[in-house]
Amino acid sequence: SSGRATAAGALERAMDELLHRAVPAMPAYGLREKTPAPAENQCADFVSFYGGLAEAAERAELLGRLARGFGVDHGQVAEQSAAVLQLLQQPREAAVLLQAEDRLRYALVPRYRSLFHHISKLDGGVRFLVQLRADLLEAQALKLMEGPHVREMNGVLKSMFSEWFSSGFLNLERVTWRSPCEMLQKISEAEAVHPVKSWADMRRRVGPYRRCYFFSHCSTPGEPLIILHVALTSEIASSIQTIVVKESPASETEERDRITTAVLYSLSLTQQGLQGVELGAFLIKRVVKELQKEFPHLGTFASLSPIPGFTKWLLGLLKSKAKDHGRNELLTDSECKEISKITGGPVNETLKTFLSSSEWVQSEQLVRALQAPLMRLCAWYLYGEKHRGYALNPVANFHLQNGAVMWRINWMADVSPKGIMGSCGLMVNYRYVLEDTATNRTTYLSSKSIKASEQVLSLVAQFQKNSKL
Amino acid sequence: SSGRATAAGALERAMDELLHRAVPAMPAYGLREKTPAPAENQCADFVSFYGGLAEAAERAELLGRLARGFGVDHGQVAEQSAAVLQLLQQPREAAVLLQAEDRLRYALVPRYRSLFHHISKLDGGVRFLVQLRADLLEAQALKLMEGPHVREMNGVLKSMFSEWFSSGFLNLERVTWRSPCEMLQKISEAEAVHPVKSWADMRRRVGPYRRCYFFSHCSTPGEPLIILHVALTSEIASSIQTIVVKESPASETEERDRITTAVLYSLSLTQQGLQGVELGAFLIKRVVKELQKEFPHLGTFASLSPIPGFTKWLLGLLKSKAKDHGRNELLTDSECKEISKITGGPVNETLKTFLSSSEWVQSEQLVRALQAPLMRLCAWYLYGEKHRGYALNPVANFHLQNGAVMWRINWMADVSPKGIMGSCGLMVNYRYVLEDTATNRTTYLSSKSIKASEQVLSLVAQFQKNSKL
Amino acid sequence: SSGRATAAGALERAMDELLHRAVPAMPAYGLREKTPAPAENQCADFVSFYGGLAEAAERAELLGRLARGFGVDHGQVAEQSAAVLQLLQQPREAAVLLQAEDRLRYALVPRYRSLFHHISKLDGGVRFLVQLRADLLEAQALKLMEGPHVREMNGVLKSMFSEWFSSGFLNLERVTWRSPCEMLQKISEAEAVHPVKSWADMRRRVGPYRRCYFFSHCSTPGEPLIILHVALTSEIASSIQTIVVKESPASETEERDRITTAVLYSLSLTQQGLQGVELGAFLIKRVVKELQKEFPHLGTFASLSPIPGFTKWLLGLLKSKAKDHGRNELLTDSECKEISKITGGPVNETLKTFLSSSEWVQSEQLVRALQAPLMRLCAWYLYGEKHRGYALNPVANFHLQNGAVMWRINWMADVSPKGIMGSCGLMVNYRYVLEDTATNRTTYLSSKSIKASEQVLSLVAQFQKNSKL
Amino acid sequence: SSGRATAAGALERAMDELLHRAVPAMPAYGLREKTPAPAENQCADFVSFYGGLAEAAERAELLGRLARGFGVDHGQVAEQSAAVLQLLQQPREAAVLLQAEDRLRYALVPRYRSLFHHISKLDGGVRFLVQLRADLLEAQALKLMEGPHVREMNGVLKSMFSEWFSSGFLNLERVTWRSPCEMLQKISEAEAVHPVKSWADMRRRVGPYRRCYFFSHCSTPGEPLIILHVALTSEIASSIQTIVVKESPASETEERDRITTAVLYSLSLTQQGLQGVELGAFLIKRVVKELQKEFPHLGTFASLSPIPGFTKWLLGLLKSKAKDHGRNELLTDSECKEISKITGGPVNETLKTFLSSSEWVQSEQLVRALQAPLMRLCAWYLYGEKHRGYALNPVANFHLQNGAVMWRINWMADVSPKGIMGSCGLMVNYRYVLEDTATNRTTYLSSKSIKASEQVLSLVAQFQKNSKL
Repeated sequence: SSGRATAAGALERAMDELLHRAVPAMPAYGLREKTPAPAENQCADFVSFYGGLAEAAERAELLGRLARGFGVDHGQVAEQSAAVLQLLQQPREAAVLLQAEDRLRYALVPRYRSLFHHISKLDGGVRFLVQLRADLLEAQALKLMEGPHVREMNGVLKSMFSEWFSSGFLNLERVTWRSPCEMLQKISEAEAVHPVKSWADMRRRVGPYRRCYFFSHCSTPGEPLIILHVALTSEIASSIQTIVVKESPASETEERDRITTAVLYSLSLTQQGLQGVELGAFLIKRVVKELQKEFPHLGTFASLSPIPGFTKWLLGLLKSKAKDHGRNELLTDSECKEISKITGGPVNETLKTFLSSSEWVQSEQLVRALQAPLMRLCAWYLYGEKHRGYALNPVANFHLQNGAVMWRINWMADVSPKGIMGSCGLMVNYRYVLEDTATNRTTYLSSKSIKASEQVLSLVAQFQKNSKL
Repeated sequence: SSGRATAAGALERAMDELLHRAVPAMPAYGLREKTPAPAENQCADFVSFYGGLAEAAERAELLGRLARGFGVDHGQVAEQSAAVLQLLQQPREAAVLLQAEDRLRYALVPRYRSLFHHISKLDGGVRFLVQLRADLLEAQALKLMEGPHVREMNGVLKSMFSEWFSSGFLNLERVTWRSPCEMLQKISEAEAVHPVKSWADMRRRVGPYRRCYFFSHCSTPGEPLIILHVALTSEIASSIQTIVVKESPASETEERDRITTAVLYSLSLTQQGLQGVELGAFLIKRVVKELQKEFPHLGTFASLSPIPGFTKWLLGLLKSKAKDHGRNELLTDSECKEISKITGGPVNETLKTFLSSSEWVQSEQLVRALQAPLMRLCAWYLYGEKHRGYALNPVANFHLQNGAVMWRINWMADVSPKGIMGSCGLMVNYRYVLEDTATNRTTYLSSKSIKASEQVLSLVAQFQKNSKL
Repeated sequence: SSGRATAAGALERAMDELLHRAVPAMPAYGLREKTPAPAENQCADFVSFYGGLAEAAERAELLGRLARGFGVDHGQVAEQSAAVLQLLQQPREAAVLLQAEDRLRYALVPRYRSLFHHISKLDGGVRFLVQLRADLLEAQALKLMEGPHVREMNGVLKSMFSEWFSSGFLNLERVTWRSPCEMLQKISEAEAVHPVKSWADMRRRVGPYRRCYFFSHCSTPGEPLIILHVALTSEIASSIQTIVVKESPASETEERDRITTAVLYSLSLTQQGLQGVELGAFLIKRVVKELQKEFPHLGTFASLSPIPGFTKWLLGLLKSKAKDHGRNELLTDSECKEISKITGGPVNETLKTFLSSSEWVQSEQLVRALQAPLMRLCAWYLYGEKHRGYALNPVANFHLQNGAVMWRINWMADVSPKGIMGSCGLMVNYRYVLEDTATNRTTYLSSKSIKASEQVLSLVAQFQKNSKL
Repeated sequence: SSGRATAAGALERAMDELLHRAVPAMPAYGLREKTPAPAENQCADFVSFYGGLAEAAERAELLGRLARGFGVDHGQVAEQSAAVLQLLQQPREAAVLLQAEDRLRYALVPRYRSLFHHISKLDGGVRFLVQLRADLLEAQALKLMEGPHVREMNGVLKSMFSEWFSSGFLNLERVTWRSPCEMLQKISEAEAVHPVKSWADMRRRVGPYRRCYFFSHCSTPGEPLIILHVALTSEIASSIQTIVVKESPASETEERDRITTAVLYSLSLTQQGLQGVELGAFLIKRVVKELQKEFPHLGTFASLSPIPGFTKWLLGLLKSKAKDHGRNELLTDSECKEISKITGGPVNETLKTFLSSSEWVQSEQLVRALQAPLMRLCAWYLYGEKHRGYALNPVANFHLQNGAVMWRINWMADVSPKGIMGSCGLMVNYRYVLEDTATNRTTYLSSKSIKASEQVLSLVAQFQKNSKL
């Protein structure tokens, strides 16, 4: 293990050496436009060194060193801040003040930003940086790295990506069965929400009454960044199984008259490094426009969305309630009685056991007995549970931020094991009433109040009447 | 005229009203990620208002108001600077300092940057901003607007463009006679250095032994941003007329063995709004790579460049010398004598008259008599005349910054009227010795010393011996 | 000249030698499917030998030798005819008869057909054959070659082309300003009816309110075989100058509501070797369909056609009349008087002189005086002059065969020198009333009767009343 | 059943009515160029009527009626034959004779050819005719239709296809994983020789060290007519399982130096209607050229081919031998003894039983014992068994006609059930020595002698020594 320590020491020294070699020095303000760009191989060195690190922890270590050791020069910031402050106190001509502010602005740029900027110019450089940020986010999630410097670096990358992946540079592409196999394979592998089972399944999802779109960056056409699947139907779908597993349609030709509704049933980001770059909302907007062009009479737009975290939240509740009171306050007495009758055990324990597997759906009686309580609990979870004032459930928060209405909670909407385990088979529609989305969006973001349909509000009311938290 | 004043007043009021409506407010730091983007039509309003201003002066007025009225909030800057300073004086944990710096960074962003950012997301938005900056540069040149705020706005736009037009997002496209007519028309109209005279001329420039490349942004393929014309030859060309006006080649097929040299004979930026965004140097690099791929044995790369400003500089010299001493110290006595013999008048006056038109090239005697003095004067102009330490001549400065060598000054190299009038028919080759360009570039940028060939240095020495400034 | 004769003799010997080498032998009927194809270079030899013949006369000589020396083996035909005849007289089973007929069919195939068939498989082979037939047609026209064998060879080629250039294998392509320059150059050079004067003129013809389509063979996309130019207007145009020389349209955008009429104003075959292969009629049909798809409300289709040969026919008439009677019977007395008054000379001579140049259009008086007689003479020329019962004028015959109606003769419709010289400035519209074309076509082809409008019939009646042939 | 007869009668009447309506009348010779084409819907009627016939027998009935009722007018043929004969007996000028021959040629064209010609001009018409011929061939194979008229019609279609699918009109396309899914699905479904098991299998066949090419007609790009699969190896493969089922290659990048040999391992015609149109030989030629361009040092070309019919032929032999003599003369005494020892039964019966299933490969002993006799029997089957003098085995005949050498018979080369059942696991390489193929081809076609390697000849000699037929 001393050998191991030595090896680690050697790696760390190699990292420091690399960083000193690869990160360009910050030229003096006056020379910033006359300083030649670093040689290409200087930045390429960083890329290949990083690529050679097999372990997530090693990569995290390198990024941490970069973030901490090559950030802002606080001494410079102090000096320039003081200069600005002085000028503001003794007013001088604007030119002097504006230049002082520009010097300050320059001092506030972390030194590693310049490394990223130069990497972005290499072949495949932008892709590398997106992957780097994905690593960084994963390392944060795994607690491999922490701290304000890392958060700052994340912010710098995100803001660079916001410029590069601006909507003006995104191409909307449609996927069909005539698209390259390679592309369909990517689409299939990227499908995170409702996994693709076979090529026949994939073919169905790009066939008649279906649309599959993605955004690619204009510099890498054909490479999906974020993907949206849509079903064209005659009403807002209440079950994912009618969309993704139903047999082939009777005809390859769409009867345009029967298409009145677009159900957005899956949205997958393929590059985790692009989290927070607002691609999803833009993609929905663009696809809505595209569909309106293709089907001028299409009027209804809604998602059919999963409710990730619902079962977990519910199990947590059941556990804490159990500890607190020894009895279940989430269900009414009659509900408790009925469940006991079916299962023959104490409600709380029984429920915890049941919700931990997907077998309960096999029992018609249980399914019937659980519908009312789970529906109202789910409504509360979506509508009432908050994080910093906004909806706790991330999918809900996403659609509400886009201006959608929380429209309808659907029972037995996803009966796949994943659906039953993750959210008791429940799914929810968020509806986009196009003329209201701007208002909804502003209301939600400013006052944090959620616009919901009568069904949802009525379920919430039932929860408030019958359950206690 | 009071009516006119009223109209002007009305326009100014309309401008202020527009700006208050269109420029998004700066959200508080804490809300910056939760604030909905402004409605699309808010920014579109600005675009259409601006587009409706027919006069350059009106556009300049609007931009000036935007720059002055919607820039940085100096109060905020003062407050955040003070906070940062205080933290730096009483060290606290890094998280607090980094956040304070981030607040300061945020306060230093001019409010109009957000307008530009949102415009960039509109269809055609980036193009609009490039044109806006072109207007801004032109207005500065025409003194329609001045001042530090305008310079700051120019800097903001340039830095945004540097991200958007980063080399990773540029596509190299080759133009041939099979390219769309529309594209060839654009190429033809954009040719600023050696104007295209006819479609046959254009066809020649994209035909055998010629290459024409351009960069387009990946979001607008087919739209040239900057264009480079190359002639494939067996030696470094010393005359532009052998390249652009010679009759059609004997054969449509290139004899690859005869191609040893690439002469870059024209580089034109089509969008003035992209000045300073480093497209030219990148384009030369990419084209050199492309040509090396096509012709692995191609070894010599050089420009054949104009010398804009030489005649003007020389006329200026002649005038000032005339005032100072009444006699010409730029020429030797024997040169003066010979010229007097030919023209029969006082050398200084004669020269001023001659250089103001292009007729002198008709006289073989004069052409012979002027060769030696004009060659050495030109060498000095290119090599010895400086601006802030760098070459005064902008074309020279460009190629030297790219790491080229000042290679050869060519007599009677451009005998078109434009060539004779602009630079006494002289042109110059800058040679790119690929293995040296990185070193040359750094040397020039850091020590400002110019690498030149023996021919150039010898002409400079002759100047120093025979002419007095 | 004996040297010359020797040279000619050598060439002829070389031709014979080539033909014996290159033209595949005719395998015996039983072996026809088991005989290997000739080596590729055997046929390629013919192609390169032919390509090396610089003189039309030499090429004609070679084709003549091929036609006469490598046609049908009459002995074989006799033998197989006799066998068939005998079988028909003494009925045997069908299998025997059908095979005998197949042998006879095989005997009737000229030997050179096999050469053509194999050439068609070479790269560029079909193109070569099309050019070969163009040479053959030109040589016939120039009387460089004559006789039944050559006519037979022409028929063989035409029938092969009819299979290869069948409408199923033709692609309709539209030309715009975004099409390759190379293609627009071809289109421009091919324009036989109203020559293109400049690139601006060309741009106009592919710009707004204009359409330019062509057929290419699917094996050579982008290569125009036959080209149709269309103007989109609000009424049937009566003058070509409003179509091809008018300045640019006010706007680049078409007002779709103003487009009610498609005027087909130019149809050019680019490959003379494809004469008689029915491309023109197909192209008009396809373009009409295409336009109906783009403009569902477009209802009127008409050509604006030249009247080649009218002036020549008229001059011929004037000469023969002059010889016969010494006076002009084509004009009425009052017409003669008026013309004499204007020109001051004998009508017949004056007219001959005037019609031989284009100056008469400068005189307003003459233009007025000649309108009535030339209009009715032209109507007669188009309607009354026949060749084997069909319209003598080839353009008229073409449109009538397609089912068009002879619609309107237009005075001062083409005032270009070519238009004045060729047809006294007259042009004619043939109108396609889509629901009637099939009937019109059958009527014209079977009963040879021409469907014409009242204007045309009334002019014909005036001719019959006032002029004598 | 009288109802059924009536229905059949009604269908037959409908057929006759259709044919009289749809098949264009044959215009008189003199009018053949002046007769308008039949209306489009006249031919389209035939297409839709035919398409509506669900039963193969019904389609065969219609085609039979067309072939018998609308063929050649024998009376006309008699008349024109007589005319030609007379002219040939009393020589007149060539023009008269040639025209008489042309009339005769015209009389020999079956009337239905004109129907086919016009159908070919409809959208999808050529495809329809190819399918029609596929039906016709199938109906002949199933004895649903017979007779000389049907054979004649087949010949007419084949000769039309020979013109339309001439190599000048075929595009070579390469299939990769970037090709459209739709295309890969077609390729996969068309693979007749070694069925594709999964998408991973398909991906392997278009991945590194593999090539997949097809011909499409230029009018229907992307639609495979005939497909060739190639493996790029370092030696002539002796087993198909090394090619189609091996796991993924170590790397996605091909090491070009290791590629010396191209093994053509599958050739599939997708349209049975194109049988006999010589696509296969052309495709091999084109692919060889293509590979030589990509890999200039690639020197060895060979097929790895199935031996369809071998087991069946062998079983037939065993049966007839059994009948004749009661003992096996195909094997030597020692071979018989060894097999008896292993199986414990009479050799002949045992063999028949074993060869009827694929289980024998499970026994190592049997595999060893059978190798020598099956190899020599197979060599004889391929080399010695003939049909009209040419190789009986159709795959052998195909490659020998193309000029290949019968190169190597491989034991245990296809151990899939299909391979074992069809040809006892044997496969054969036909090698293309490019400089010899032309000679080989001519030799085979003219003298019917097969060029084979020493291995094959030695096996044949062993057969002649040890087996008796």
